[in-house]
Amino acid sequence: MNIAVDAMGGDHAPGVIVQGALWAQSELGANITLVGDQNLLGDELSKREKAGNSIQVYHCSQMVTMDESPLRVLRQKKDASIMVAFDLVRRGKAEAVVSAGNSGATIGAAVLALGRIRGVERPALAGIFPGAKGGVVLIDIGANVDTTPKQLFEFAIMGDIFTRSLLNVDNPKVGILNIGEEGGKGNEQVRVAHDLFKKGPFDFVGNVEGRDIFSGDVQVIVSDGFVGNVAVKLTEGMAETMGIMFEREMSRSLVSRLGFWLSRSAFEDFKRNLDYAEYGGALLLGVRGVGVVCHGSSSPKAIKNAIKASIGFVNNHIQDRLEEGLAKFQ
Amino acid sequence: MNIAVDAMGGDHAPGVIVQGALWAQSELGANITLVGDQNLLGDELSKREKAGNSIQVYHCSQMVTMDESPLRVLRQKKDASIMVAFDLVRRGKAEAVVSAGNSGATIGAAVLALGRIRGVERPALAGIFPGAKGGVVLIDIGANVDTTPKQLFEFAIMGDIFTRSLLNVDNPKVGILNIGEEGGKGNEQVRVAHDLFKKGPFDFVGNVEGRDIFSGDVQVIVSDGFVGNVAVKLTEGMAETMGIMFEREMSRSLVSRLGFWLSRSAFEDFKRNLDYAEYGGALLLGVRGVGVVCHGSSSPKAIKNAIKASIGFVNNHIQDRLEEGLAKFQ
Repeated sequence: MNIAVDAMGGDHAPGVIVQGALWAQSELGANITLVGDQNLLGDELSKREKAGNSIQVYHCSQMVTMDESPLRVLRQKKDASIMVAFDLVRRGKAEAVVSAGNSGATIGAAVLALGRIRGVERPALAGIFPGAKGGVVLIDIGANVDTTPKQLFEFAIMGDIFTRSLLNVDNPKVGILNIGEEGGKGNEQVRVAHDLFKKGPFDFVGNVEGRDIFSGDVQVIVSDGFVGNVAVKLTEGMAETMGIMFEREMSRSLVSRLGFWLSRSAFEDFKRNLDYAEYGGALLLGVRGVGVVCHGSSSPKAIKNAIKASIGFVNNHIQDRLEEGLAKFQ
Repeated sequence: MNIAVDAMGGDHAPGVIVQGALWAQSELGANITLVGDQNLLGDELSKREKAGNSIQVYHCSQMVTMDESPLRVLRQKKDASIMVAFDLVRRGKAEAVVSAGNSGATIGAAVLALGRIRGVERPALAGIFPGAKGGVVLIDIGANVDTTPKQLFEFAIMGDIFTRSLLNVDNPKVGILNIGEEGGKGNEQVRVAHDLFKKGPFDFVGNVEGRDIFSGDVQVIVSDGFVGNVAVKLTEGMAETMGIMFEREMSRSLVSRLGFWLSRSAFEDFKRNLDYAEYGGALLLGVRGVGVVCHGSSSPKAIKNAIKASIGFVNNHIQDRLEEGLAKFQ
């Protein structure tokens, strides 16, 4: 198995990407192809590489910035690292792509190179939240905005299959993210979706609220990508702010400082549960292949874990399972 | 000043409401009128009341359940506690209403009894988040869904005035909650709003993301009520879950248990910062009067703090300031 890593994408590319890929290679024994400018990548590798480490570089001449229009990239930057990376998958030279770059361009490049799975109008990003009773899958966390109820319905089918396959949940409960539990609540989009979901081939439990993303009572939560993306970023921001506020509070007295010092390792374990870097990235569901979208500001650890996750997705044959599941429903 | 409290609204009404009102009366010296069934309220009061405490009861014959259709309430339940409470304000018998009941019915009753401020198409709920650098006002947190860009624009004007008046911020920065910082990002609603906001009589800094709700770099964040409500409930759920996960982690070893015990009071201070009960409730902006909407599962402390907040809103002449601000812009 070979993983194509977009070495030019992300706020701190290519340095942290190269570092994460090297860690993945040495820790996981993963075969990795770094896609990007060979001179830049050669420099980064020679700074870091130890004897025994060898990593492939696939040269390309262009890269995509974080705020570039995805449409423009697809039309005009055929040799951008993200385009070339997905083309390696299309040509059977790699099994998955990992990118911390422009997520719109990543999704566009995936659809262009690999195509969509039959029955999927819009691919969606699935993210995993650390619920009190286990992982909660939120889909979509930012691939789409202005989603139709029918598209939300497809997200539910994909989220259900993803959760069964990846989180080993037998019969996941599926809910619609809404602002109240009753059927008539919410905006036009979710009200129509609610009726549609009742006919779905999954265990639909009705509307859920923002707090359920963390309760773990429901394992799959379906949402428009706008709302899902706000939720993900709010969670990150809150975790960060709470960390700062917590340490500030703890440093106020000698006794609490001592207490904090004693419980430090437990605190670090706790923070790790909430650290997105542990999860690596979000899987793009609905394309004919595996693409993992990472945070733009990913650390080397996040990149390493995203590569690890991508290997899991390939080994799990998630694409085949989605194709089977969606075909059954066609 | 007299505060009308909807004694029949909320998951634990009337017991916790009566308790919160009694606390507010004894701690703050507030004049309070409990609106609801006089027999039920008489029982609750006689269970709790000590010598020296006296609280008014205004009888009404109907109440509203949490999942009742607001429209039905407005048409058919003229003598529901929330309707009667706002009518007391309309008739000059009270200065503000506090309710933990059905929020749709509360907003509807407020608009029906008091009317909207000129220039406001839709009143909105403003909530305060505890940012790392101070409070952040999120508007709307659930009064409206499918909001138009023009309505978002009104929310911005009201949020700006609210933040100046209540948080004593001189020139608050105003942002639109979006999924990326660039102008072209997001759904139709926020893309159009972005252009409109540039002409606004406030310090518009552009799009902000979910993480900014906690950073405190921007003081006013404007959002559709659907997204804002998901954000509020997500925050509550996350704070709760993090508390559980934290204590679980801390109890794993003797040393961390000791450490946690030593830092316990700092931990309690920290939790208080995140506890919605400290803030009491959200102010309904845009009606000709003061209405505070509390969480359905409000504790007596939350009710007490909401009554305290409502007194602050009245003393601050927030309604006059909104009328002046909006008139200037007409």
